[in-house]
Amino acid sequence: MPEKLVEQITARDVDFAKWYTDIVKKADLIDYSSVRGCMILKPYGYALWENIQRELDLRFKAAGHENVYMPLFIPESLLQKEKEHVEGFAPEVAWVTHGGEEKLTERLCVRPTSETLFCELYANIIHSYRDLPKLYNQWCSVVRWEKTTRPFLRSLEFLWQEGHTAHVDEAEARGETLKMLDVYADFCREFLAIPVVKGRKTDKEKFAGARETYTIEAIMHDGKALQAGTTHYFGDGFARAFGIQFSDKDNKLQYVHQTSWGMSTRIIGAVIMVHSDDNGLSLPPKLAPVQVVIVPIAPHKSRVLEKAREVLEDVSAVARVKLDDSDKQSGWKFSEHEMRGVPVRLEIGPKDIEQGQATLVRRDTREKTAVPLKELSMKIPKLLKEIQAGMYERAKKRLEDGTHTAQNFDEFKDIIEREGGFIKAMWCGAQECEEIIKAETGATSRCMPHGQEAVGDECVCCGRPAKTLVYWGKAY
Amino acid sequence: MPEKLVEQITARDVDFAKWYTDIVKKADLIDYSSVRGCMILKPYGYALWENIQRELDLRFKAAGHENVYMPLFIPESLLQKEKEHVEGFAPEVAWVTHGGEEKLTERLCVRPTSETLFCELYANIIHSYRDLPKLYNQWCSVVRWEKTTRPFLRSLEFLWQEGHTAHVDEAEARGETLKMLDVYADFCREFLAIPVVKGRKTDKEKFAGARETYTIEAIMHDGKALQAGTTHYFGDGFARAFGIQFSDKDNKLQYVHQTSWGMSTRIIGAVIMVHSDDNGLSLPPKLAPVQVVIVPIAPHKSRVLEKAREVLEDVSAVARVKLDDSDKQSGWKFSEHEMRGVPVRLEIGPKDIEQGQATLVRRDTREKTAVPLKELSMKIPKLLKEIQAGMYERAKKRLEDGTHTAQNFDEFKDIIEREGGFIKAMWCGAQECEEIIKAETGATSRCMPHGQEAVGDECVCCGRPAKTLVYWGKAY
Repeated sequence: MPEKLVEQITARDVDFAKWYTDIVKKADLIDYSSVRGCMILKPYGYALWENIQRELDLRFKAAGHENVYMPLFIPESLLQKEKEHVEGFAPEVAWVTHGGEEKLTERLCVRPTSETLFCELYANIIHSYRDLPKLYNQWCSVVRWEKTTRPFLRSLEFLWQEGHTAHVDEAEARGETLKMLDVYADFCREFLAIPVVKGRKTDKEKFAGARETYTIEAIMHDGKALQAGTTHYFGDGFARAFGIQFSDKDNKLQYVHQTSWGMSTRIIGAVIMVHSDDNGLSLPPKLAPVQVVIVPIAPHKSRVLEKAREVLEDVSAVARVKLDDSDKQSGWKFSEHEMRGVPVRLEIGPKDIEQGQATLVRRDTREKTAVPLKELSMKIPKLLKEIQAGMYERAKKRLEDGTHTAQNFDEFKDIIEREGGFIKAMWCGAQECEEIIKAETGATSRCMPHGQEAVGDECVCCGRPAKTLVYWGKAY
Repeated sequence: MPEKLVEQITARDVDFAKWYTDIVKKADLIDYSSVRGCMILKPYGYALWENIQRELDLRFKAAGHENVYMPLFIPESLLQKEKEHVEGFAPEVAWVTHGGEEKLTERLCVRPTSETLFCELYANIIHSYRDLPKLYNQWCSVVRWEKTTRPFLRSLEFLWQEGHTAHVDEAEARGETLKMLDVYADFCREFLAIPVVKGRKTDKEKFAGARETYTIEAIMHDGKALQAGTTHYFGDGFARAFGIQFSDKDNKLQYVHQTSWGMSTRIIGAVIMVHSDDNGLSLPPKLAPVQVVIVPIAPHKSRVLEKAREVLEDVSAVARVKLDDSDKQSGWKFSEHEMRGVPVRLEIGPKDIEQGQATLVRRDTREKTAVPLKELSMKIPKLLKEIQAGMYERAKKRLEDGTHTAQNFDEFKDIIEREGGFIKAMWCGAQECEEIIKAETGATSRCMPHGQEAVGDECVCCGRPAKTLVYWGKAY
């Protein structure tokens, strides 16, 4: 590795938390506001969300979903209709009590999630099996009154999408729950170059009001897990609480079966903690707002800027490219664009021009290649693909290397202490064991993974007969 | 005009307000929620907003703007920093007083607009002339505690974009204010087929805290005016209140000059009230989520559905097209898609197939043309352009026909009573006259138009020497 060009961020191995906040601030993704726990998404941070939103929205629409917009406020009485749901959310909602000068007769909460509003709508508009399925999604912000907050990972307000669907029966709703989990996992793998483990949450960890919650779990550079997206199967619980009924083909009244699923700006935190390094952010090309930055070397010299502009025009046709023709030093520009995670730097100076070439530098490996100018628009898309694939492969290897197996509680504690990461271990199904594991190690059950074999017969905690394999880990 | 196919909406001339609400409900644009004054944007209504958003966003970005996201909440003390601004907005904001179980030490208002938040950010990030201009925009929802509400036109919560910019001096900021007014006017003309009058608001009508407010005003089918977008020049008033200073090239501290500008879902109300008729919604093709609907005639007959699917595939390459192969009657489908304002209906039945043609029916004029199947993908884009242009021309003629001139107050009252529309009349500049005109006629000053000659010498209200031409009208 060549010498470090950026000195102003804390090294990842020295203080992971500080490294993380250094990156979000210095790559200019966010700023803080005077409201506790609310962050400002600055242009570069918001551009990441726009790209995520565009790509996910295409995938949702291809799967038959339609976007809607529901109100920001939920009347207290509406929130209370489903018992488990309100118990889960009431402690962490913001309450509006006054409109203008007037005190409201009923408090309104600022939506922490919109199940109740969608249920109210569905009760009004679903009458017949012909009205089903309803496959709605919305893009919005939600508010949860968190005590401690961290940029992207946990904030009082965050941006997300929430899908809410209603189906004729359990099979179809369960199918949707699993299908959308795949949509999330595929999106993480293909677009963000983040490998995930898919699985079901234990009862203790599931969403308030859900019969089952599925999750995708990723592993960060510090060995901690991060829940990157969830999908919920509700059965007909909400339908009964809200009276969402339809006439089936035999003209009998039935309750709908429902799902919901969400992914938020939190995923940007995962991108940072999976891919970045001591030089700053590193973005997978598909996500990067700027894929190639052109840095002219000795730009005052004859024809350098002119050539750089020609290259800009050529490359614009095949990549999101930017020319940095500011009056800063080249070294400063190298650092700055590395810090911002631009996947490819294209250097062009007098010597390059003499030889009819430019130099391409990968952000991820810092590998340099000289490429004839005429081949740039052919080579760059190829290079971007290689970077995307390489970033995924390295992340996948870390996920694999960071996944351990524990046969007993001593092994479990030892791994958590020495290595972190995921621990595959058997579980008896008792919530008590989850609580003991959490109390003694800080690890929680992340998920019961899809289609994986048992790694033993006994619960890693109590030694009683095991029911299922669980991925455990300390988590964000 | 052929006979009416849709009977279920109130005629426009009988009850304009009911006609309007019939359309928003029956074209399936919105639904009501249990929160007073908050509407639900259903898939078809939200699709209109998505198209508006995509097009405006392109235009904003082409003009150099970047998107950000600011917090939903504004601390009371921050809202109070600019005196006129808080006086304008405090009476109509929603107040959050509790987070979870805890009572807040300072109330937070749900943003009614975000000048104060942008100012706080700008004070933090602007230091030098090199940091300017800042050209930020955000897409979000805002809340204003209105007493009476109507779908799209006035609701407690609405979706919008708000641009907030900071500049080195007055000239640049004034330039931005006028440039964005043009962006709005061009967008209305080119995309929504809505002609507007551009001008400046009187002091009485301007935005709270603005030095000058500019507006685009459109005229509805009932002769009422609608403010469709506004841009504000703030001078350095907010900069002084929030301490937004920079070092200029001579290293002297200066205050920035600022602007803001916004367009909201209200514009969808304008689209409805400018273009629609007794058969329902009528959408300009550029805005329409579905531009062409294919209705197979006698779809049970041999080859009809097969041919319809071939046409669907052909036409998909040149237009947003949908095949209605539901088991409803053709007549029902005609009515339904007219109600939803789909610009072109493509009918294809056994006779058409025999003759190797399809029938195109325009939603706006109901004109029918038989077109050879092979020419469809050439003819349809041309037809969509003609419809777009025709809708604009007719709306423009109505704006012109609906614009009258009054020399004195009797003429003024007479026009308002008999015809409505815009009244061009001279004004002395006294707020008292605006108040008298409003009290006696219900009309308000809409704008002082760009570059139009005087129509007289005396104030239409008091007879004193006139200072300026004003467009007056009753307004939404």
